[in-house]
Amino acid sequence: MDYLSELTAKGKNAKQAGRKLATLSTAVKNQALVSMADALEQEYRGILTANAIDVDNGRAKGLSESMLDRLALTENRIQAMAEGLRQIAQLPDPIGEVLSKERRPNGLEISKVRVPLGVIGIIFESRPNVTVDATGLCLKAGNAVLLRGGSEAIHSNIAIINVIAQAAYKAGIPVGAIQLIETTDRQAVNAMLKLKSYLDVIIPRGGAGLIKTVVENSTVPVIETGTGVCHTFVDESADLDMAQAIALNAKISRPGTCNTMETLLVHQGVAEQFLPAMLSLYQQAGVELRGCPETMRYHETVKLASDEDWATEYLDFILSVKVVGDLDEALDHIHRYSTLHSEAIITQDTNNAMRFQQEVDAAAVYVNASTRFTDGFEFGFGAEIGISTQKIHARGPMGLAELTSIKYLIAGNGQIR
Amino acid sequence: MDYLSELTAKGKNAKQAGRKLATLSTAVKNQALVSMADALEQEYRGILTANAIDVDNGRAKGLSESMLDRLALTENRIQAMAEGLRQIAQLPDPIGEVLSKERRPNGLEISKVRVPLGVIGIIFESRPNVTVDATGLCLKAGNAVLLRGGSEAIHSNIAIINVIAQAAYKAGIPVGAIQLIETTDRQAVNAMLKLKSYLDVIIPRGGAGLIKTVVENSTVPVIETGTGVCHTFVDESADLDMAQAIALNAKISRPGTCNTMETLLVHQGVAEQFLPAMLSLYQQAGVELRGCPETMRYHETVKLASDEDWATEYLDFILSVKVVGDLDEALDHIHRYSTLHSEAIITQDTNNAMRFQQEVDAAAVYVNASTRFTDGFEFGFGAEIGISTQKIHARGPMGLAELTSIKYLIAGNGQIR
Repeated sequence: MDYLSELTAKGKNAKQAGRKLATLSTAVKNQALVSMADALEQEYRGILTANAIDVDNGRAKGLSESMLDRLALTENRIQAMAEGLRQIAQLPDPIGEVLSKERRPNGLEISKVRVPLGVIGIIFESRPNVTVDATGLCLKAGNAVLLRGGSEAIHSNIAIINVIAQAAYKAGIPVGAIQLIETTDRQAVNAMLKLKSYLDVIIPRGGAGLIKTVVENSTVPVIETGTGVCHTFVDESADLDMAQAIALNAKISRPGTCNTMETLLVHQGVAEQFLPAMLSLYQQAGVELRGCPETMRYHETVKLASDEDWATEYLDFILSVKVVGDLDEALDHIHRYSTLHSEAIITQDTNNAMRFQQEVDAAAVYVNASTRFTDGFEFGFGAEIGISTQKIHARGPMGLAELTSIKYLIAGNGQIR
Repeated sequence: MDYLSELTAKGKNAKQAGRKLATLSTAVKNQALVSMADALEQEYRGILTANAIDVDNGRAKGLSESMLDRLALTENRIQAMAEGLRQIAQLPDPIGEVLSKERRPNGLEISKVRVPLGVIGIIFESRPNVTVDATGLCLKAGNAVLLRGGSEAIHSNIAIINVIAQAAYKAGIPVGAIQLIETTDRQAVNAMLKLKSYLDVIIPRGGAGLIKTVVENSTVPVIETGTGVCHTFVDESADLDMAQAIALNAKISRPGTCNTMETLLVHQGVAEQFLPAMLSLYQQAGVELRGCPETMRYHETVKLASDEDWATEYLDFILSVKVVGDLDEALDHIHRYSTLHSEAIITQDTNNAMRFQQEVDAAAVYVNASTRFTDGFEFGFGAEIGISTQKIHARGPMGLAELTSIKYLIAGNGQIR
């Protein structure tokens, strides 16, 4: 089957399944999630066998060790996926929630209720656990899902989808609700982006290149996720011990995540007191430092940052550091280079804290805490499908509610206009 | 100035203005709206003079009388625009609203607050009143606006924007908050759709062709508005007098609007009793009728509907009519041809009413009322920038809240992860 026929057939199936899913009871959805979890654990051997093919192919193709690690599955990792599905089953069902209800002067009763989005397309890269997470969240919110994973994980993804889709269908989920694009033809991505008759939204999960391709080519509405050039600004009034702990954590606790700090801004009034020890700590932790000329004065390992550095999401043990004259200069820098993800100020000055939170345009704006908290679980959503860096529909960590739409139900008794 | 320089310069100005607008007080915004209204009334002569040029040019170009009527301004119409601005000033300011606030177990306090979208691009067609309405609504919600109107109204739009922008700036609105693309070069639309660095969202207001162009070419997120192939289904149990009144109103009260019914579906069990009188009423009202073979039996003026008819938004005194076997056939027809705008069932059967509301996927789903009520004012929003027919961000009539985003403000005391 060529990629276009596959996409059209699966798109059509998904649309039909979505229509039925919208009216499914919470009990059926939850039972399906639990059955999917059980099936993953029972059939883990088949998944590991398929995964071994991907890992072997990846090694032969020269994938890096960190890439291979992201790709590789173990019994434990499969159990963690199953556990994730069981947790989603425990979350409240967002569908059917009445968000408002009002009787108009003409007697019309207008209710605003939460409904599924319909069919969600997910385009993602190497980690096979996304296949399970994304499917579970979309399903719980009443959506059909059409997945397109990276070619390097294709055998793993096919094996996983077969297991969870079978289990779901047996538990009463309509056939077509859970599908994976199986062709690895690269043109399939572009074709998927034009599948407007069948897809209600596309969520890309992956690197900046993938997200750019999706945003630039999709005629289906997109929820942009993930890119984070996050800043931490150490204000003149900061508690410098707190600043040190936060600035270290925000960079090194998990540098590959989008909520990691990429640029440290330091008020010139505390630079001399704060930076030498801070930069030493980074150096001891293996962080490569790139800074403005002023920063270079405080540690011999700091290389001169280029203009590109300020705009770069390193996702690595690399940090750019800049000394700024005041809060306004920090705000201007952030305004210029921020990807609107997560920004933090460390300060004891209430006015500056307030100005920072008001004036910085980002999904999450922190006072005296690490940007690493921008995460669906940390925010208490119980789940996360990604972190939106756009301003429409959803912003910041996206949980179940962000995978829904609304509709207005209007009850009348003959009203005309 | 070439169109690209104009767009870039105005985009940059808008972005800068948007940053300041986000922190502006409600009082300043309201005062500006009132000043803009006053200025429109004081300077109406200049606007009428500019409008006369557009009307003369339009007549010379052979625009239809209805097009010329939409284009033409009068002192009364300008007063109505001013009144609209004063009404927007009266509406509650959505910005700053705290949507939720929660203390996490680790002590982080996470607030979700309403913020402006930033810069909104509006691409619209002939009616110059959109220039004022859209500007007023965007401004009240703290957004900068970049407008692109139709070339046939260019002199009117320039005159209007000059008057209201001057008045707004004098009242403390940052320069750049209210701008119109003045070039009539058609390529400017496509360039505007790529202005991702400066625009946060684009809202097209106009016909199906404009909306298609925007959706297919924009890299800026789009909120799709307006196309409505709306259905009314007369169920077997319907109160037929009520059905007649609603079906007549939904078609003829204002056929040019998107919430007008385009297809009437009738249960076969009541077709013989209902259709002859109904079709006569339509015929007397000047409605051209296109129907299925069964419908043709009930009135001699009914022409055979083509498959295209069922998918057409006539926006005119034309109606397609189909007799269906039961509720399921009605649901299937709607599922196939609906543009997800507004759908209605006329029934006395509670189960059928419930099934219809649950299973129909549309922004507004009516029981025993006319689809014509899908409108921001009728819904009690006090305003309307358009009717979204997509499922992300906003669905149905869009008021001030739909012109906003959110951000998370997190207060900590040194939390690290």
